[in-house]
Amino acid sequence: MGINMKKYIDELRTMETSDMFENDFLLTWEKSDDEIQAVFAVADALRYLREHNISGRIFDTGLAVSLFRDNSTRTRFSFASAANFLGLTVQDLDEGKSQIAHGETVRETANMVSFMSDVIGIRDDMFIGKGNTYMREVAKAVHQGHAEGILPQRPTLVNLQCDIDHPTQSMADMLHIIHYFGGIENLAGKKIAMSWAYSPSYGKPLSVPQGIIGLMTRFGMDVCLAHPKGYELMGETLTIAEKNAKSGGGSFTKTNNMEEAFADADIVYPKSWAPYEAMEKRTKLYEDDDSKGIKSLEKELLEHNKKFTDWTCTEKLMSKTKDGAALYMHCLPADITGVSCEKGEVDANVFDRYRELLYKEAGFKPYIIAAMIFLAKCKDPGEMLRKIVSGGGIPRSL
Amino acid sequence: MGINMKKYIDELRTMETSDMFENDFLLTWEKSDDEIQAVFAVADALRYLREHNISGRIFDTGLAVSLFRDNSTRTRFSFASAANFLGLTVQDLDEGKSQIAHGETVRETANMVSFMSDVIGIRDDMFIGKGNTYMREVAKAVHQGHAEGILPQRPTLVNLQCDIDHPTQSMADMLHIIHYFGGIENLAGKKIAMSWAYSPSYGKPLSVPQGIIGLMTRFGMDVCLAHPKGYELMGETLTIAEKNAKSGGGSFTKTNNMEEAFADADIVYPKSWAPYEAMEKRTKLYEDDDSKGIKSLEKELLEHNKKFTDWTCTEKLMSKTKDGAALYMHCLPADITGVSCEKGEVDANVFDRYRELLYKEAGFKPYIIAAMIFLAKCKDPGEMLRKIVSGGGIPRSL
Amino acid sequence: MGINMKKYIDELRTMETSDMFENDFLLTWEKSDDEIQAVFAVADALRYLREHNISGRIFDTGLAVSLFRDNSTRTRFSFASAANFLGLTVQDLDEGKSQIAHGETVRETANMVSFMSDVIGIRDDMFIGKGNTYMREVAKAVHQGHAEGILPQRPTLVNLQCDIDHPTQSMADMLHIIHYFGGIENLAGKKIAMSWAYSPSYGKPLSVPQGIIGLMTRFGMDVCLAHPKGYELMGETLTIAEKNAKSGGGSFTKTNNMEEAFADADIVYPKSWAPYEAMEKRTKLYEDDDSKGIKSLEKELLEHNKKFTDWTCTEKLMSKTKDGAALYMHCLPADITGVSCEKGEVDANVFDRYRELLYKEAGFKPYIIAAMIFLAKCKDPGEMLRKIVSGGGIPRSL
Repeated sequence: MGINMKKYIDELRTMETSDMFENDFLLTWEKSDDEIQAVFAVADALRYLREHNISGRIFDTGLAVSLFRDNSTRTRFSFASAANFLGLTVQDLDEGKSQIAHGETVRETANMVSFMSDVIGIRDDMFIGKGNTYMREVAKAVHQGHAEGILPQRPTLVNLQCDIDHPTQSMADMLHIIHYFGGIENLAGKKIAMSWAYSPSYGKPLSVPQGIIGLMTRFGMDVCLAHPKGYELMGETLTIAEKNAKSGGGSFTKTNNMEEAFADADIVYPKSWAPYEAMEKRTKLYEDDDSKGIKSLEKELLEHNKKFTDWTCTEKLMSKTKDGAALYMHCLPADITGVSCEKGEVDANVFDRYRELLYKEAGFKPYIIAAMIFLAKCKDPGEMLRKIVSGGGIPRSL
Repeated sequence: MGINMKKYIDELRTMETSDMFENDFLLTWEKSDDEIQAVFAVADALRYLREHNISGRIFDTGLAVSLFRDNSTRTRFSFASAANFLGLTVQDLDEGKSQIAHGETVRETANMVSFMSDVIGIRDDMFIGKGNTYMREVAKAVHQGHAEGILPQRPTLVNLQCDIDHPTQSMADMLHIIHYFGGIENLAGKKIAMSWAYSPSYGKPLSVPQGIIGLMTRFGMDVCLAHPKGYELMGETLTIAEKNAKSGGGSFTKTNNMEEAFADADIVYPKSWAPYEAMEKRTKLYEDDDSKGIKSLEKELLEHNKKFTDWTCTEKLMSKTKDGAALYMHCLPADITGVSCEKGEVDANVFDRYRELLYKEAGFKPYIIAAMIFLAKCKDPGEMLRKIVSGGGIPRSL
Repeated sequence: MGINMKKYIDELRTMETSDMFENDFLLTWEKSDDEIQAVFAVADALRYLREHNISGRIFDTGLAVSLFRDNSTRTRFSFASAANFLGLTVQDLDEGKSQIAHGETVRETANMVSFMSDVIGIRDDMFIGKGNTYMREVAKAVHQGHAEGILPQRPTLVNLQCDIDHPTQSMADMLHIIHYFGGIENLAGKKIAMSWAYSPSYGKPLSVPQGIIGLMTRFGMDVCLAHPKGYELMGETLTIAEKNAKSGGGSFTKTNNMEEAFADADIVYPKSWAPYEAMEKRTKLYEDDDSKGIKSLEKELLEHNKKFTDWTCTEKLMSKTKDGAALYMHCLPADITGVSCEKGEVDANVFDRYRELLYKEAGFKPYIIAAMIFLAKCKDPGEMLRKIVSGGGIPRSL
């Protein structure tokens, strides 16, 4: 057994993770510090297995249901990769091909797709007040279905992005930071600027910045949220960030000045999002099926966005960060000035300089998802890892 | 080995199932009583395995082709679950993404998708006279392909719903009844009302009621078919129901009165379907690409349906059944009055009272499909089950 | 171990295939004769395994990414079959469901889908100058990603059809010829007529005839390319055919007379394609989003095609071939006169006479694809085959 593997297993044995067993992963702030760190430990352990060509298969057969209500490349592939590495097969619940529209309730669908399913991954980030609520309805339904003897197992829900949080993204981002700075113990006092940035598009979800301020405030970091007036996030996520900062020994500040946020920052995360109030309006318009209203709101928002084209991550702005060398982060794909659009979130030279790191950041996501599933399925995760590597492990490929 | 498992294996050894090996499952009435009961025994055995976390994998690799010509949630997931539990991977034959339209014959497509495929599951229920015919063409093509040395194996066809029968549904329904009444030997003399019910939709397949009267008449039950005049089923399925009732010691009666059907019934199955003659007309209109005719027929049928809104499963009607406590059944999703529509097939309180049982009913389908595949692939199914559980079996999940 | 298996393993041990390890398969003419023959040997070996119910699984888990930019039945199923037989799970990169449109570069997408992927299969044959270029960009991106430590492995690219070559088709076709004539050593001096044929459709890819003349000229065959004036292929593929003929001891001739090509031919391959120049024009029109121009070009080409309806494979023409009994080939689906169209590429009686052989020809493709992957993943392919069959091998199905 490699020295790293032993370290992960030993770490896991000191952590209280029993509540994760047969449970869901919906919001990072519902999880204890031990639970968050257990995800990181297992993610690193699984990455170790993959890189050493050891199979991480804990299922001989089994289904992982995926429901994507928004287009996705990286999250779809991350989920597929995680499921596959553990031995599960993805089965898409494509609502276009299903009978869901024909009067089926959430409770019914949840049970119907779960007779032989171990995991359900849902991405539902389009409408404020909807996505997370839907996930909880599904979770409740399968919990009840299992209790009533309808389902032989309780499938685990993984939030692949909702209206409130994007835990697989923020956790992958944080694991990237941990590796970059050489350990979670080095994060205290580090300043991260989560800043709005201009994009010529409309209606980008709020869940990434909300997830970032909700998670990064936990381990002693100084989180500074920056955005123009009118681009507020959901109030409850601000409250959580404040609470976390207080208990975690870090800080949470807000500003309407991008430069202020970048000043002396160790990490910058400039990214576009839609204003919360506009998203609420939009949700209402969709409910009313008011396509004229939707179009007019879209036009209005794009116009409004244009007032803030100077909210963009330039080399000049980067030079204001700690030693002019902050870690630049993004969940990808980014709107790159002069590449994917005329004016966007980031200058091409900044993006290019960090490309390798950005791709590595994204590369943590499959392992974060796999770790969430692993911890929900293994009663004693440390012991399971030990079993997997005992005798050198089974090769993933011959 | 659990006591149940031994029972299933012993049962299988007394049954004549050799004709099922390397054969298809297209219509229940093509199968002997032994063959039908073998499906139930294997389905229960596989469920036992799943519930005891024993892997049912009989394939190391292999494809299960699925072709759905109608939307589906539960059948799609049931097929995916069954294939996965046995070790097969589903590959969709999505006609929109294929070149089938470009002059490829059924014979050619059937061979082209079968070079390394073990199973083909087809749902084709939209047009009278088409679905089952298509399945037989596919079956003939792969049979010939295997005989000519084109295919290294003969893939097994499973009818996932056609214009005539819906064997995976009716078999799952019947296994539910068997469990509910404590054994197939307790079904003799039980009355089941297969009744039409009102729905504000149009063109629902006839295969469910046809499958039910074709199967349930076999084991001594008294099957009563009820529908308004004009909602006749295919004549050949009525003939089969009569024949089966005669040889099975039960009865088959028809009525145009829902109350009469429900009177003293042990089981009720109220469900909407389209009239056979209208479906024939519709098939012709689609063949002629007569979209105006299709729309006018749809309008006419919806209007006609509305004359029978009182054909609905109310508490009052339920009170007329045996001890006021008949088992309520449905293939789901149901049109529930006040929930999914203003007026539908069943009152919300009736549906709610039986929800748990309805979900359990649906839960048999993956095992029925897996059992059909198992019996087509294993020369000695009892011996194969014995092998699977010998030494405690291989865990499905670690 | 069967005598055949030993033969394949011994053959492989005499071949220089080290450059195939962790490499791609994009064009047959980039591969040495040893490498081409190694693909045939491994394909035959894997077919042997499948036919003897021995598992060919060399991956415990892993993803095979598929990207189809054109409709496909047989190539899609061939890729799925190959991946499954080796133990990989296909994950479709469906551009409609992805965020690729939103400003993501090829380099980024390639890395994002490859964190845990072992193979990428791409079909991109619609536009001249695009498909192969795109594949090379993807290959370069994942190569770089691996070098930079972003990807734990270097996924292998398999060209499932591009604008220049269709290597999995031409290789399957050639393996069919090898089996038909009893060995690669019997091909010297055999004449193959790769001829254009009339089809009432428009814009068929050029990659099949280009792939055929590029590959079949290598092993001493006399390749005769026939087409009406104006239906020229890409110049570079003609150059390659000439070069290959010279070094391989065969010949490459061109004619505008179908009868001349068929005269005394051992093999005929009559198939429609679009003229190279028209395809170039079309690519330009699509780039300019000139839908009017596209329609007008389509009309013009269909009209032009009609001048050559006598370019069709009739029994009369077949009688001119060697002993009137040339092997008729096609990549399928064919345009069959009186079956799939009024006038097409081939008469129904000719097609019917060769149907069994045509289906067998198609049946080689899954094994060719699997062999390409196998050779890219196994450092010592002969030793790997020996391991697989040692002790009788693991059964594919119990």
